[in-house]
Amino acid sequence: MNYGVVIFPSKNLQDLANSYRKRYDPHYALIPPHLTLKNVFSADDDQIKDIADNLRSIAKNYDPFNLKAYKVSSFQPVNNVIYFKVEPTPELEGLHHDMHKKNILNDEPEFAFVPHITIAQKLSNDEHSDIYGSLSMLGVDHEETIDRFHLLYQLENGSWTVYETFRLGKES
Amino acid sequence: MNYGVVIFPSKNLQDLANSYRKRYDPHYALIPPHLTLKNVFSADDDQIKDIADNLRSIAKNYDPFNLKAYKVSSFQPVNNVIYFKVEPTPELEGLHHDMHKKNILNDEPEFAFVPHITIAQKLSNDEHSDIYGSLSMLGVDHEETIDRFHLLYQLENGSWTVYETFRLGKES
Repeated sequence: MNYGVVIFPSKNLQDLANSYRKRYDPHYALIPPHLTLKNVFSADDDQIKDIADNLRSIAKNYDPFNLKAYKVSSFQPVNNVIYFKVEPTPELEGLHHDMHKKNILNDEPEFAFVPHITIAQKLSNDEHSDIYGSLSMLGVDHEETIDRFHLLYQLENGSWTVYETFRLGKES
Repeated sequence: MNYGVVIFPSKNLQDLANSYRKRYDPHYALIPPHLTLKNVFSADDDQIKDIADNLRSIAKNYDPFNLKAYKVSSFQPVNNVIYFKVEPTPELEGLHHDMHKKNILNDEPEFAFVPHITIAQKLSNDEHSDIYGSLSMLGVDHEETIDRFHLLYQLENGSWTVYETFRLGKES
């Protein structure tokens, strides 16, 4: 089964992201707006119990932190993905790092970690230029507290369901 | 903000439900297949912390249990909703009851609790007859273990995001 680990930002930021995704992101109906901590990976039912245990331990090592989405950016020329750029923090870097340690989840990240919330993708070059022009001018300026992340799995239709929530910090 | 409490069944049962929902349920893209424990309710940011605390306590009082989806049924003549009928169990009844106690979430259930997973809705009477005829013959026969439920909130576009997962039983 396919799994992934993401942060869902607050309703306000999700609503803003969806106002663009509705038109510009073919994944709009498959998953709510999110910041990916660990890209899609495959695991069987036994492995996932261990992985969930590991994620639970990781979550305990980080306190809730401030997430700041501060500009619209693009991954071009690597690909035509437009996103809300999120300021890197020690917590985001640490969570990402801990989820990619060889001894835990047994894989290395494919790319350098650029924290982001996708708002447009699978655009032609022309679409990308047009849309990136308008969205950059609109911009984004949003801060909020993140206190949890989620382990998701993928259904056959490509959509994602939450398997478990992990709250940051020590359980009270 | 609008909240709700649901159980997401396993990927297998979700995939089966989605194979019907894709054609017959306009909510297909808004939420994965689910069994509703507590219907949509409104709460503000302060209230929801208390409600989440309450749900956490409720979850601890129930052990993982067997969910059995054993036939295709319909709510007609009340409404044209077709669903996988789920065998009531003391755990399902108890969870539903505890989430509707007056002193906790301050509301009474609107209807008697009929545990189900919707596979078709918003059908005309003619559509309902046709589709119910075919789906009843196909039937469903599925058992699995349920060990968690989820608190969700609704975005402006009508879709649902998971706020938190609650695992049944004592935390290890």
